[in-house]
Amino acid sequence: MAALNVVPFVSVDNMMRLVHAAGIETMLVRLAAAIAEDFSRWEAFHKTPRVAAHSAEGVIELMPTSDGTTYGFKYVNGHPKNAAGGRQTVTAFGVLADVGSGYPVLVTEMTLLTALRTAATSALAARHLARPGSRTMALVGNGAQAEFQALAFRALMGIDTLRLHDIDPAATEKCRRNLARFGFHLTACASTAEAVRGADIVTTVTADKRNAVILGDNLVGEGVHVNAVGGDCPGKTELAPEILHRAGIFVEYEPQTRIEGEIQQLAPDHPVTELWRVLSGEMPGRRDVREVTVFDSVGFAIEDFSALRTVRDLLAERPFYDDLDLLADPDDPRDLFGMLMRAGPPRLAA
Amino acid sequence: MAALNVVPFVSVDNMMRLVHAAGIETMLVRLAAAIAEDFSRWEAFHKTPRVAAHSAEGVIELMPTSDGTTYGFKYVNGHPKNAAGGRQTVTAFGVLADVGSGYPVLVTEMTLLTALRTAATSALAARHLARPGSRTMALVGNGAQAEFQALAFRALMGIDTLRLHDIDPAATEKCRRNLARFGFHLTACASTAEAVRGADIVTTVTADKRNAVILGDNLVGEGVHVNAVGGDCPGKTELAPEILHRAGIFVEYEPQTRIEGEIQQLAPDHPVTELWRVLSGEMPGRRDVREVTVFDSVGFAIEDFSALRTVRDLLAERPFYDDLDLLADPDDPRDLFGMLMRAGPPRLAA
Repeated sequence: MAALNVVPFVSVDNMMRLVHAAGIETMLVRLAAAIAEDFSRWEAFHKTPRVAAHSAEGVIELMPTSDGTTYGFKYVNGHPKNAAGGRQTVTAFGVLADVGSGYPVLVTEMTLLTALRTAATSALAARHLARPGSRTMALVGNGAQAEFQALAFRALMGIDTLRLHDIDPAATEKCRRNLARFGFHLTACASTAEAVRGADIVTTVTADKRNAVILGDNLVGEGVHVNAVGGDCPGKTELAPEILHRAGIFVEYEPQTRIEGEIQQLAPDHPVTELWRVLSGEMPGRRDVREVTVFDSVGFAIEDFSALRTVRDLLAERPFYDDLDLLADPDDPRDLFGMLMRAGPPRLAA
Repeated sequence: MAALNVVPFVSVDNMMRLVHAAGIETMLVRLAAAIAEDFSRWEAFHKTPRVAAHSAEGVIELMPTSDGTTYGFKYVNGHPKNAAGGRQTVTAFGVLADVGSGYPVLVTEMTLLTALRTAATSALAARHLARPGSRTMALVGNGAQAEFQALAFRALMGIDTLRLHDIDPAATEKCRRNLARFGFHLTACASTAEAVRGADIVTTVTADKRNAVILGDNLVGEGVHVNAVGGDCPGKTELAPEILHRAGIFVEYEPQTRIEGEIQQLAPDHPVTELWRVLSGEMPGRRDVREVTVFDSVGFAIEDFSALRTVRDLLAERPFYDDLDLLADPDDPRDLFGMLMRAGPPRLAA
């Protein structure tokens, strides 16, 4: 049995080792399976809105949830100007804890893990919302999330053809270079219009921090599935509202998406379907091959919970973690002070 | 300049080293000074209620706050049954972050730190609420918090005489033994009535998880200051309501204390004074030598913030921390995937 003071900690370095040891596509598949399982038992979770501290520079959020047995939370920031200073726009770490004792059981980096779980969620949704037999995806926005989306859609959907576009050609080149070794048919496209040509699925994952029209109404043809990942906070959207008006819209957690998602452009009573109802079989996903579907993804605490428990399970197979001396553990729980004193310098007899 | 991926981490071991290096009483004085400073600029803080996940076994809480420049939060659990299994009833850890970048700047154990800051807050309040010249304190409840209270009251108030009582004589004996080296006049008392005899200050810090009357009305004479620390959640109180009806009542943050504190026994409009108004000079503390005063302490996020920033400042003088590889830091912020791939096994040329 592990010492009570010690909590496993997964550093960025160990997370990378863990992903490579498991295999990145296997990891994405496992994450998607955990998310599907947790979404299917949606009502077991205690759901709270994010707890956000906003400032002029960005936002710091805590995203807690619990299934009654295990508790998890993620700390995540969003600071658009960070990139200019060589920092990540979004960084994250998370904690899993035992509800019965309140003791943390895992502390882990979550910048990489969030990128993986976001992509796994997108591909999981697309399995239920994209046309069967989809092979080609347009990837509009070729930043930090792009390659994760590509691999998740390959692992879960069989996507083998990618049409890349970014307003910055250097981003597209980076994405193309990173994905070259994975055997996709890759086309760098000069415009969004070119990228969406012939695509079964259109993934928008830009970093534009305004209500922008990344995807115009005329670019979305019959039967296309739009995986809208980049619009994820108030005032930041990517889709022309006309697309939403003619699409079947699927969201993670409606109260949160009304504020943060593409649907902030719609009337508050515009019908949407929560993805968990599709995953649990309660509601249909795509209705026919001509329907336009939109997954309006903003990221939800249960996805982080699923990711945290997946990492915990993986660590049982591959111990890529350090022991963190995080919890005071006096021999007698009432004698915290005695523990402190015994750690101090010896005292002379009086 | 430190690497961007690294966050200083203070383990339990390093926290103990830090406390001993600074000196425990000096540490308590520094904490009280930071709390006084932060309470005096109360309106600069963004205050939110705790975010609590309740279960049959206990509660897990996140306590965030921010002054617009620095953000802090504490994770803390409360699980009364833990002690029976050799675990702490309350454990905690905390994080300080830079509001401008959203990057964490400190991760630290907070079980010990919370014990210290709770005691520092009590003694700070008593400086404004207890009779000048107070020397004798009754300490009712001799568990994990007791010795910290004793040392804080000595360091900040000059208390040199302690009258100890606990329903479990072994707890009193532990407390007496731990405090023996500090030069107090110590008396172990067989009852609360005996303990409060002649006391200028009565500190109640029991672990009883019910609405209990630890301190009956007849035990609190004129001019006494009651430092009520143990009643700190709904359904857990220590004082006979009659004491509250004839006392000047001081609280940390009224909306929270109405739910968690002794005053849950009173009408919701019963007048109380927030401590920060006393510390900032806006409101009087004790009015005369005959007044009974009560500090109804439940613990508040700003105290944790003050404690976190005190630790951060101490680390600049004494580097008792480890580097935690917590934040993904790719050379190009948009190339998170490339960072992951470069950490992987080398690939054969195609």
